[in-house]
Amino acid sequence: MDIDAIGDRRLRADRPALAAAGAPATHCPTLLERYHNVRAASLHLASPLSAEDQCVQSMPDASPIKWHLAHTTWFFEALVLQPHVAGYRCFDPRYAHLFNSYYVSLGSRHMRALRGLLTRPAHAEVLEYRNYVDGAVQSLLRTGARNDQVEALLELGLNHEQQHQELMLTDIKHAFYLNPLRPAYRPADASRSGQPAPLRWQTHEGGIQEIGHAGEGFAFDNEMPRHPVLLAPFQIASRPVSCQEYLEFVHDGGYRRPELWLSDGWDLAQAQDWRAPLYWEPDDGGGFNVFTLHGLQPIDPGDAVCHLSFYEACAFASWANARLPTEFEWEAAAARSGPRAICGSVWQWTRSSYDGYPGFQPFDGPAGEYNGKFMVGQLVLRGGSFATPPGHVRITYRNFFAPGARWQFSGLRLARDV
Amino acid sequence: MDIDAIGDRRLRADRPALAAAGAPATHCPTLLERYHNVRAASLHLASPLSAEDQCVQSMPDASPIKWHLAHTTWFFEALVLQPHVAGYRCFDPRYAHLFNSYYVSLGSRHMRALRGLLTRPAHAEVLEYRNYVDGAVQSLLRTGARNDQVEALLELGLNHEQQHQELMLTDIKHAFYLNPLRPAYRPADASRSGQPAPLRWQTHEGGIQEIGHAGEGFAFDNEMPRHPVLLAPFQIASRPVSCQEYLEFVHDGGYRRPELWLSDGWDLAQAQDWRAPLYWEPDDGGGFNVFTLHGLQPIDPGDAVCHLSFYEACAFASWANARLPTEFEWEAAAARSGPRAICGSVWQWTRSSYDGYPGFQPFDGPAGEYNGKFMVGQLVLRGGSFATPPGHVRITYRNFFAPGARWQFSGLRLARDV
Amino acid sequence: MDIDAIGDRRLRADRPALAAAGAPATHCPTLLERYHNVRAASLHLASPLSAEDQCVQSMPDASPIKWHLAHTTWFFEALVLQPHVAGYRCFDPRYAHLFNSYYVSLGSRHMRALRGLLTRPAHAEVLEYRNYVDGAVQSLLRTGARNDQVEALLELGLNHEQQHQELMLTDIKHAFYLNPLRPAYRPADASRSGQPAPLRWQTHEGGIQEIGHAGEGFAFDNEMPRHPVLLAPFQIASRPVSCQEYLEFVHDGGYRRPELWLSDGWDLAQAQDWRAPLYWEPDDGGGFNVFTLHGLQPIDPGDAVCHLSFYEACAFASWANARLPTEFEWEAAAARSGPRAICGSVWQWTRSSYDGYPGFQPFDGPAGEYNGKFMVGQLVLRGGSFATPPGHVRITYRNFFAPGARWQFSGLRLARDV
Amino acid sequence: MDIDAIGDRRLRADRPALAAAGAPATHCPTLLERYHNVRAASLHLASPLSAEDQCVQSMPDASPIKWHLAHTTWFFEALVLQPHVAGYRCFDPRYAHLFNSYYVSLGSRHMRALRGLLTRPAHAEVLEYRNYVDGAVQSLLRTGARNDQVEALLELGLNHEQQHQELMLTDIKHAFYLNPLRPAYRPADASRSGQPAPLRWQTHEGGIQEIGHAGEGFAFDNEMPRHPVLLAPFQIASRPVSCQEYLEFVHDGGYRRPELWLSDGWDLAQAQDWRAPLYWEPDDGGGFNVFTLHGLQPIDPGDAVCHLSFYEACAFASWANARLPTEFEWEAAAARSGPRAICGSVWQWTRSSYDGYPGFQPFDGPAGEYNGKFMVGQLVLRGGSFATPPGHVRITYRNFFAPGARWQFSGLRLARDV
Repeated sequence: MDIDAIGDRRLRADRPALAAAGAPATHCPTLLERYHNVRAASLHLASPLSAEDQCVQSMPDASPIKWHLAHTTWFFEALVLQPHVAGYRCFDPRYAHLFNSYYVSLGSRHMRALRGLLTRPAHAEVLEYRNYVDGAVQSLLRTGARNDQVEALLELGLNHEQQHQELMLTDIKHAFYLNPLRPAYRPADASRSGQPAPLRWQTHEGGIQEIGHAGEGFAFDNEMPRHPVLLAPFQIASRPVSCQEYLEFVHDGGYRRPELWLSDGWDLAQAQDWRAPLYWEPDDGGGFNVFTLHGLQPIDPGDAVCHLSFYEACAFASWANARLPTEFEWEAAAARSGPRAICGSVWQWTRSSYDGYPGFQPFDGPAGEYNGKFMVGQLVLRGGSFATPPGHVRITYRNFFAPGARWQFSGLRLARDV
Repeated sequence: MDIDAIGDRRLRADRPALAAAGAPATHCPTLLERYHNVRAASLHLASPLSAEDQCVQSMPDASPIKWHLAHTTWFFEALVLQPHVAGYRCFDPRYAHLFNSYYVSLGSRHMRALRGLLTRPAHAEVLEYRNYVDGAVQSLLRTGARNDQVEALLELGLNHEQQHQELMLTDIKHAFYLNPLRPAYRPADASRSGQPAPLRWQTHEGGIQEIGHAGEGFAFDNEMPRHPVLLAPFQIASRPVSCQEYLEFVHDGGYRRPELWLSDGWDLAQAQDWRAPLYWEPDDGGGFNVFTLHGLQPIDPGDAVCHLSFYEACAFASWANARLPTEFEWEAAAARSGPRAICGSVWQWTRSSYDGYPGFQPFDGPAGEYNGKFMVGQLVLRGGSFATPPGHVRITYRNFFAPGARWQFSGLRLARDV
Repeated sequence: MDIDAIGDRRLRADRPALAAAGAPATHCPTLLERYHNVRAASLHLASPLSAEDQCVQSMPDASPIKWHLAHTTWFFEALVLQPHVAGYRCFDPRYAHLFNSYYVSLGSRHMRALRGLLTRPAHAEVLEYRNYVDGAVQSLLRTGARNDQVEALLELGLNHEQQHQELMLTDIKHAFYLNPLRPAYRPADASRSGQPAPLRWQTHEGGIQEIGHAGEGFAFDNEMPRHPVLLAPFQIASRPVSCQEYLEFVHDGGYRRPELWLSDGWDLAQAQDWRAPLYWEPDDGGGFNVFTLHGLQPIDPGDAVCHLSFYEACAFASWANARLPTEFEWEAAAARSGPRAICGSVWQWTRSSYDGYPGFQPFDGPAGEYNGKFMVGQLVLRGGSFATPPGHVRITYRNFFAPGARWQFSGLRLARDV
Repeated sequence: MDIDAIGDRRLRADRPALAAAGAPATHCPTLLERYHNVRAASLHLASPLSAEDQCVQSMPDASPIKWHLAHTTWFFEALVLQPHVAGYRCFDPRYAHLFNSYYVSLGSRHMRALRGLLTRPAHAEVLEYRNYVDGAVQSLLRTGARNDQVEALLELGLNHEQQHQELMLTDIKHAFYLNPLRPAYRPADASRSGQPAPLRWQTHEGGIQEIGHAGEGFAFDNEMPRHPVLLAPFQIASRPVSCQEYLEFVHDGGYRRPELWLSDGWDLAQAQDWRAPLYWEPDDGGGFNVFTLHGLQPIDPGDAVCHLSFYEACAFASWANARLPTEFEWEAAAARSGPRAICGSVWQWTRSSYDGYPGFQPFDGPAGEYNGKFMVGQLVLRGGSFATPPGHVRITYRNFFAPGARWQFSGLRLARDV
């Protein structure tokens, strides 16, 4: 087994964003330090973008960068400061309506599809809002009013903000893609992955495996409780599918052969005229370029293929005489190899529908709306991408999206029965 | 444990249709006899309906009765007669396009949403088509050209037709509901269920359970392979949720409390203004009547509640401090009680997404499109309804629909953790 | 001027329907005779169709034949019998909801798009309904309770039914077109128009012209009051545009040249992928066949081109360096040539928006909803088609449809400035 | 006749924008002076708005302010500089695709609905673009290469930019309205109109009237040729309908009485739940406030009612036992009273469909797409609003919008038959 061979593979075309999200810490930072670091990382990610850039929303599924910056701030205000700091005075009571995403228990919410019309509050006002809330949170952390509940909510808030950091990149990428000028988020470097590493099959003997989070350290409610699952023996690939492999699928008529596709996927692919992953564009020579955070680039064959829907991932797997792993198989394999080896450049679709684990309990209070109410109609992705903040990756982590979603950094890793 | 107490509960309001589908056989019928019986049952179900009634399609998800009669016939023609009877001549080669539902490998298909415009072929021509194909199948069965493969395909065709028999009832019910005259499919009788039986919780100790079909007897590919699943201890209710219990949920604001609902479900309920199950209509006194195959009727409190979406089933379970069982829990419970006890008047939503079992292999050939390509975006229902033909019910049977579907005979049985 | 040259041109492919609508009378029939004739003509038009055929609705703009038969009957019941026959008892009080088209003042109405689901009342019941109402009207006409108001309403009812007779043909043609079997309403004959007559330009000197209906004889409220209009000199073509001429437009890229089109028309043509008139289908040799009431037929070059939208008519006119006439120009030209010469095989789009004449007064009572409330967003067509009942054609007649409508028997006659 | 009484009525709530568009000149400015003034006025109108504000698009019918600034610049570049200045080098060749609105003959165009995603070019770049083009135009005007054709195109460009100046205000108003913070474009002043002036009916004796533009001075192609029209006698109101009068209509159930409405209008009003003009909002006391360019304000009863669709204007007129004037009646009345008297605070819907005058000829070249291709499905408005730039108002001017459009400064003036 050589799972390490893919450990540091990155989606090079999009890579420069990584540093922005903050380097791994060399000591165990305090909660206050981490609060500072995470909040700063969001601003760092926004820094190449103008106020105009930060205002637009390219589709209802995406949000403006400014909205991400404000919403993550509101999260601290609404879940930590208002309930736990006596006499806390909101920065602007109207912001709750604007920046509440989906917390019904916390009051009314602006229509999601209209987030891009919020030219007011201005970008500068949102930065003020961040400063104001940051000051209040730092006071809370310094003055000892903190307690376990407050610390847990702050942890949740930081992990929540880290999730939005990745979304900031996926969302601005999508917005820039719809601009015929095809702007670059950051300048490109010249490095190339070259050829993909050889793909190896790693065998897992199956049996009863413990799945999910337990013990110290933060985890979302949907990663718990840890529980046993019975697995049949299986094999899993040593790395995600590469662009080169996916090109073969495309050139072999993968987008023209309904027998490879789930029925819903085929219908969607026809309706939207899919012929390659999102962001791939035919070049003049029968190949493809790909739109990246650095603008339009040649495809790098060694990169992990990215911006696939679940449907495309399934069709590819079918073409390759393989299948997607279940999320349990993925986690069992990851438990051997460790996150550095198995997580990597792209999120990996699994064939597991997103549901609560046996005995699942949502977080208490408003945070109970965080995960549980979305447990239908979505598929689990595992791993993490180049854009996932360091420290936010763990092998029990469950990402989830609808099967037709393509604007995330989503690829696949193959599995098969023994 | 008293699971038998609910064994013969039927959805009385819709009950008379049951006899139509044929009484349980008292000896083991031959394949020829079963072919005759199943085909006759379809015509019997259509018999109260005029040619006009049989032509309409109330929504793209439903099909005209005449189309059901023709499509099930085409299934035998295309999968059995054409490939396996030398020199077989199609009744009308244009019918393949009209009556192929979704078999891409078998050629072009008429647009699903336009099935209701097929006034031609006329009803009488479709009956001729049935006779023609029946004659050819009976010849095949009598003259010895039959073999294992042919018999397996005929079995599949009969089970396929039985599935459509239930759909004939759900589809005509929906069409009649959209007619302001609210016609009755059959006259009503006067019997009433009265009060529901007391609900008891039956405990299952969990552990490794064998799930799925094995051995003799027909099963669909999606019921196989039989495989072990590890279950935690759980409790399951002794009967489905009754109309009386569901009325309490409605009167307790169940349709106005988002905290009880999955997010997608709440959105759909608002968009379509749901206030009660499909076919329930407010009466003048704050209660409800219900549209049935016998026309509009008072609600019978002891009946199993029916025509729920998955979302409503989940919201009810949440309100009742319980949950839906997984399909594995359901099957494990059913393995104790037997199909007569646990299957019954309504299909029962489970919380399990419809997916292939480990090692799933679709049927060979065109029949491979029967189930596998739909394994995304749907939830499994178990049990069977008053309208499921006798002999078509088994504890490994997996029905499946999208979570918003309400026009099936779908209710729920509660479960909870121990 | 030789406007007579086109007087008896008919859309031959659809011609046999004409006789069905009744031959011109050779004496002046009584109101009772006309009532009988018009009502019989509707049944005659429906006679080639099965109960299934008469039940379907191919799109919201069209209605089922059975609905036409019932609605025209309800019109007599609701506007004549109920208000004017003491003690009249409705055939079925529920029919008012089902068969009221758009008369808000006459109560609730079934949703237009769901008319095709009305398998009940059955076809036979609708025929009974017609008999019942016919009996009551005939009694009214025979027993002297009639008066001017009643006679005027009966006249309106007959003209209303004649309008629906043409719609019965346009609607069943559209429904049959969406059936892949492409059924024929009636068998075809073998006659052909051959080459179109030479097109001549007829000059009109302009000046003040009296427009609209005055004097004896029935006319709709929208044809009145007769009033003067000032016209500039113009020329108008001696016959409608032929299929041969339209083919030249098609072959000259007419559907690929936006500069010929109105902006809305171009957008619609692109969205719906128009490449020829509705019902034209490419044959294997670069030409077209056309779907008619006799099934698919070769294009007859001398026929008037038909099933054009207003947008196509304008684009053709632009291509031909001409324009559409205004409805006033058309009527002024027709006043010279007479209806037999200028009305003919197809309705003729004019460039005039449908609006009330100066001093327009709607009919009194519910009949006031007949025309006036539709006076926006539609264009006037003049003339009449092969399917317009004899006796229903007059030069002041104003037909009107939305500019994108193509399922009517609509063509064009060119005009140009002098 | 006292038509002057309303001459200086302004929509006070929105008034401050007026000065921005430039005061009427006291001498006859040169083309160069006017170029400078009109271009400066656009920037002045944009000056209260941030770069973010100028980037958003609230609906496909509206455009971002930045886009207006760039598009009007492109118009000069594409129609004047590129064809008429030898060696002219485009500021950025990619802008043609971005800022071409609908000129098919000038190449590809960005999708209209996506204009709000154009965060690039940045606001500052668009200002540079304006400077660049302004420099080139000024050189052209100063160096004598100018000729009649160039001057005519520059005139067209200036009139075009003035049209966009009004749209800038209607579009930003709509965008701000969809922001729950309801920002103000400019601060309000405290003046109020108070009670409306008494409405008087002015009689016009009809007869042949010359309609349309002739002689010196700029006019759009759709105002020509001047031609005679025959009018019946009519009366027209001395001022537009006031908010007070419209409130009576609202309180009298105007939005709940289908008999007052055109059928299409009623359907749209129901579908969009109209209960008052756009921007009117119920206050707590049974009255209304109105959203203006100064934020939410009490209704001023003497103001002309504004932001009506054609449908609402017709329904009000019907309720008032009157009708809308035709555009010819309006112009004939205006020819007596002069533009200062009849044009005013709001555009006035007429009942005339937008069509070419007899003998209409579009401008030559690309400018031919300016008006002619939109001559279907729209109604003419006459007059001008408080936001129409001084010098852009004339009695032959024809504005036009679809009948459901409400975001323009559109009201009505009543007319009636004598």
